Amino acid sequence: MKAFVTGGAGFIGSNLVDRLLLRGDDVVAYDNLSTGRREFLREALANPRFALVEGDVLDGDALSAAMRGCDFVFHLAANADVRFGVEHPEKDLLQNTITTFRVLEAMRESGVKRIAFSSTGSIYGEPVVFPTPEDAPFPVQTSLYGASKLACEGLISAYCNGFGFSGWIFRFVSILGERYTHGHVFDFYKRLRDDPQALHVLGNGKQRKSYLYVHDCIDAIFAAIERAETKPAILNLGTDEYCMVNDSIGWITGALGLTPRLTYSGGERGWIGDSPFIFLDCGRMRQLGWAPKLSIQQGILRTLDFLRANPWVFDATQ
Amino acid sequence: MKAFVTGGAGFIGSNLVDRLLLRGDDVVAYDNLSTGRREFLREALANPRFALVEGDVLDGDALSAAMRGCDFVFHLAANADVRFGVEHPEKDLLQNTITTFRVLEAMRESGVKRIAFSSTGSIYGEPVVFPTPEDAPFPVQTSLYGASKLACEGLISAYCNGFGFSGWIFRFVSILGERYTHGHVFDFYKRLRDDPQALHVLGNGKQRKSYLYVHDCIDAIFAAIERAETKPAILNLGTDEYCMVNDSIGWITGALGLTPRLTYSGGERGWIGDSPFIFLDCGRMRQLGWAPKLSIQQGILRTLDFLRANPWVFDATQ
Repeated sequence: MKAFVTGGAGFIGSNLVDRLLLRGDDVVAYDNLSTGRREFLREALANPRFALVEGDVLDGDALSAAMRGCDFVFHLAANADVRFGVEHPEKDLLQNTITTFRVLEAMRESGVKRIAFSSTGSIYGEPVVFPTPEDAPFPVQTSLYGASKLACEGLISAYCNGFGFSGWIFRFVSILGERYTHGHVFDFYKRLRDDPQALHVLGNGKQRKSYLYVHDCIDAIFAAIERAETKPAILNLGTDEYCMVNDSIGWITGALGLTPRLTYSGGERGWIGDSPFIFLDCGRMRQLGWAPKLSIQQGILRTLDFLRANPWVFDATQ
Repeated sequence: MKAFVTGGAGFIGSNLVDRLLLRGDDVVAYDNLSTGRREFLREALANPRFALVEGDVLDGDALSAAMRGCDFVFHLAANADVRFGVEHPEKDLLQNTITTFRVLEAMRESGVKRIAFSSTGSIYGEPVVFPTPEDAPFPVQTSLYGASKLACEGLISAYCNGFGFSGWIFRFVSILGERYTHGHVFDFYKRLRDDPQALHVLGNGKQRKSYLYVHDCIDAIFAAIERAETKPAILNLGTDEYCMVNDSIGWITGALGLTPRLTYSGGERGWIGDSPFIFLDCGRMRQLGWAPKLSIQQGILRTLDFLRANPWVFDATQ
C-alpha cells in the first residue's frame, strides 16, 4: 500500500515509517517538525519509496494535496503532552480535535477511506473497572488531553458511519522505546543526569501505570489492520500487567547504578487529570492473535538504553 | 442569581429565559439570532431584569464582556440539526464543539464557574442497553451531531476537574412544546398543511423515540441545579416511555381530523446516524424528586396546538 503518516517524524510515527518501508510499502510522512525530528527519518530518507512532506496538519489544502494517491492514513500527529492541559487548554482542541477533523476532511477530498488513529487510555478518565475493557461504563473525562482524544474518536466513528470510512482506533497505554522523547523515563533519566543524588517524583510514587514497547505497538497495529472488523475497530493496546511508578524508578536507578534520595510531591495523582491506575483489558487485541514481546520492565530498560546511547535528544529538547 | 443564557432566543433558551425571570432571576440572553427569534423574547424584553445581547458565541471577546457579572451559564446555543451532519460536517464542529470551548474560556476570563449544558441522547449512538443509563457501555458515535456533543461533554468535564468548575450536563431526548421550530411534529404538520392527503415518512415508521415537554425539561434543570452533586452531574432527561413514529403520526393526524396516505422511505433508520430506538433511563433525575407532568402524547399534542396557533413560524423558516 501507499501509506500516509501524520506525525511521521515523531516517536511512534518514525518507527512506523521504518516498519512500513521494511515490509515493502510506499510511505509519505507529513510532519511540521515542531516536535518531530528529521534525524529519526535518516534511514527512511535514503529510501526511494519514502517522501517527507513538511507541512502543518491544520493546513487542509497542503494536507489534501500531499495525501492524494495514498491508500491508508496513519494519523499520529497530536499534542501528546498529557500533563499540561490546564496551562494551555486551546492546544489540545487545536492539535488534536481540529487537526483530526482536518485529516478526515482531507481524506474525503483526496478519496482515502482508511484511517488508523492513536487514541489513549486516558479517555477512560478514572475507570471503575480493571482491567478496563473497551466497552467499560461510559467514562467521565478528567483531562483536556483525554477529552480531545475522545472528540477525535467520535469524529472518526461518525465518518465511518456517515461516509463509509474504515477506522481503527487504538487506545494506547503509554508507549515507550527507541526515539522516545517525553514521559517519565525521559524525565527521570534527564534529571538523574543533572543530579544523580536526588530525584523528585510527582505524586506518591504509588500510581499504577501501564507501558508498551513501541515495536509491540506497531505489531498490534499491523495485526488489527489485517484482521479486525471495522465499524470502526476500537482496540485497547497495552500489556497484561502494570507497575508502580516506584517500581520503574527502581529499575531505572538499578540499571544506572544509582541510589538517589527520593522526594515526592505527594497525593494519589501526579498532576491534574492524572489517573492513579491505568490497566487496560487488551483481550480484543489478543483475540486477533497479537501478543507483546517485551514486558513493561524490558520496555523501560530498552528505553533507558536508547536514551543513554543518544544524549543528543536531551540537548534538542532543552 | 444573574443567569447567562447562550441561544437565549431559541426554542428551549427563550422558554428558560421566561422561567428564570418568573422566579426572580436576572437574565442576560446571548444570541446571534441566526435561528433564534426576537419574537420569542417579546415578554422578556419588557422586563427590566432582562437584557438581550446580539452576538456570536464564536466571538470570544464579546462573549466574555457580555458574561461579566453573571453567576451561572446556561449553554444552549448549538447546531441542533441532527439529520444533516454529513451534508456539512464542519457545522457541528464549529457550532457545537468549538462554540462550547469558547463559552468555557469566556467563563474562565470572566470568573463564572457554573455551567448547565444541553447534551443529547444521541451520544449513546445505537445503545445496547434499554432504557439506557448514563453509565451505559462506552458507546460508538454514529452521527456528527452526537460526536460533537460528546466532545462538548468531555470539555466541560475536563474544565470541572481542571479549573474547579461545576457542571450540569443534560442528555436530552427530543424536546418539544411551545416555540418548537424543528423536528418531526414541525415537519409533519408543515407538510400536511401543504398537502393534507399525503405524508411521506423517513424510515419505516417503526423507529421508537422519546420526547419530553419543554417545561418538564426546564423543571428538571432547576431541580438538578438545586440538588445534584456535580463532578460534573451527568443526567439523562426524558420520560419513562417511548413511542413509534407511527404512533405520533396517528396522534397528529387524529387531532387534525386527517387521514393522509402514508408512504415510507423504508429502513430502520430515517437518515444516516438516526438511532432506531431511543429510550433513556432517567432514574438519576427521578431520584432528585423530579417527574415529568406531560406524557409523550400530551407533549406532541401541545406542540401541535402551538404550531396551529402560530403559523408565522412556518413563514419565517421557509
